[in-house]
Amino acid sequence: MITSAANQRVKQIVLWQKKSQERHKDGVFVAEGLKMFEEAPGEQILEVYLSESLQEKIRLQGNGLPVEDKLKKTGFELVSDEVFRKMSDTQTPQGILTVLRQPRYQLSDLLRKPDPLLLVLENIQDPGNLGTILRTGEGAGITGVILSEDTVDIYNPKTVRSTMGSIYRVPFLYVADLEATLGQLHQAGVATYAAHLNGKNYYGSFSFRHATAFLVGNEAKGLRESTAKLARHSLRIPMEGKVESLNAAIASALLMYEAHRQRHMELS
Amino acid sequence: MITSAANQRVKQIVLWQKKSQERHKDGVFVAEGLKMFEEAPGEQILEVYLSESLQEKIRLQGNGLPVEDKLKKTGFELVSDEVFRKMSDTQTPQGILTVLRQPRYQLSDLLRKPDPLLLVLENIQDPGNLGTILRTGEGAGITGVILSEDTVDIYNPKTVRSTMGSIYRVPFLYVADLEATLGQLHQAGVATYAAHLNGKNYYGSFSFRHATAFLVGNEAKGLRESTAKLARHSLRIPMEGKVESLNAAIASALLMYEAHRQRHMELS
Repeated sequence: MITSAANQRVKQIVLWQKKSQERHKDGVFVAEGLKMFEEAPGEQILEVYLSESLQEKIRLQGNGLPVEDKLKKTGFELVSDEVFRKMSDTQTPQGILTVLRQPRYQLSDLLRKPDPLLLVLENIQDPGNLGTILRTGEGAGITGVILSEDTVDIYNPKTVRSTMGSIYRVPFLYVADLEATLGQLHQAGVATYAAHLNGKNYYGSFSFRHATAFLVGNEAKGLRESTAKLARHSLRIPMEGKVESLNAAIASALLMYEAHRQRHMELS
Repeated sequence: MITSAANQRVKQIVLWQKKSQERHKDGVFVAEGLKMFEEAPGEQILEVYLSESLQEKIRLQGNGLPVEDKLKKTGFELVSDEVFRKMSDTQTPQGILTVLRQPRYQLSDLLRKPDPLLLVLENIQDPGNLGTILRTGEGAGITGVILSEDTVDIYNPKTVRSTMGSIYRVPFLYVADLEATLGQLHQAGVATYAAHLNGKNYYGSFSFRHATAFLVGNEAKGLRESTAKLARHSLRIPMEGKVESLNAAIASALLMYEAHRQRHMELS
């Protein structure tokens, strides 16, 4: 059992939690919590840390819990509660922390399914927002997310947690050159739609039944003009009252679920 | 100019910022930021505090700014930057803080418009989520929000900020007895819909063109069974993949904008 915060592995975890650079140098990320452990793909798991009190809790609840089975397969390192609190990014740690290998996706992974439904995010800054977007995206059936390089790190601990597991299942790709990537999407027959305050048409007036990508921009500033122009179409989410913009996660949700509605519901 | 954090008015602001009880005892709330000052209804404004550096910034930008005009009307108290930081709930204060009288709405205020569109929130706990719900609600054209008593305080500084001004315009009402209030809604001819994981029907399969209220529950647990049963209908937001639930603000947004789509867009 690890009982000292001076332990090298503990120090490494803290670095991975805090610094995007450290995570990327080592090609790993950290996922906290029971659900994030249970849903973690086995082949990506590198290390598991369990707090003393969570081990005790699992033991008291008897055999046969799914988490117990999985812990037997992955193995784990026991950590004193005090040290675990230091490793954790949360105020009330659940007592389990998984270190995983970062997956490597290609654009082709995002385009594999017929009629892909993609989200292209530019310069999203709020980690929780990004996580919520991924979670909602999986719910709406998107096939992938493309992120501009200046978007917050998807492996930020808060983002990972707020995906509620979707980070394991929705393919994503950071790109340095959005223009080049949008060119590739157009070549692959994907229709691109910029969500824009000056968008001419109501978002529900388009058909999203075939290959579709929605472009959504920064929380405060929206899409850059230069990026919005790269999209084949621009669309508008109507707003009543004195509302000037919507939260980026809300705007993404409305677009993705409109596509879902058209693809799944209108026929029934 | 106030230059001491020991000043009684500064101490009072800090209490109002931190404690819901203090705000309710005095019937006031605090709104931070330039936009929140500019959009604040004049008749509700009780006090305005301006930081030294924001005053200087306004002076440098010359006359005729809308904020300058409004400051002349309301009057303000100048505060040193150091003391302002202590009064502020944010990490990087904008330098303006407005104290307002809490409005008092009745259920009749929420039902005044024809075909009201209401949101009933039970036990929402995240202040930012509640603010986003109000902001999105105004965008979707809702006529009011009803909140269970165990929902987070709408005057929480984080909630106020994340409404982006909608708190001034969307009527809301905390109720001790949701059952009684739903009874009043039914009597007024409002159709009630519980958003529920076990909801039988897809949310887009209902008509929300006439008086409608959506019931949305706690972020982690959803609606209480006993509350869900009080609604006349239950509805389901479909989820693909392994997603088990959606964020409460996202779920609310999808429902409110589906009502908006039906009311404004389908005819065009």
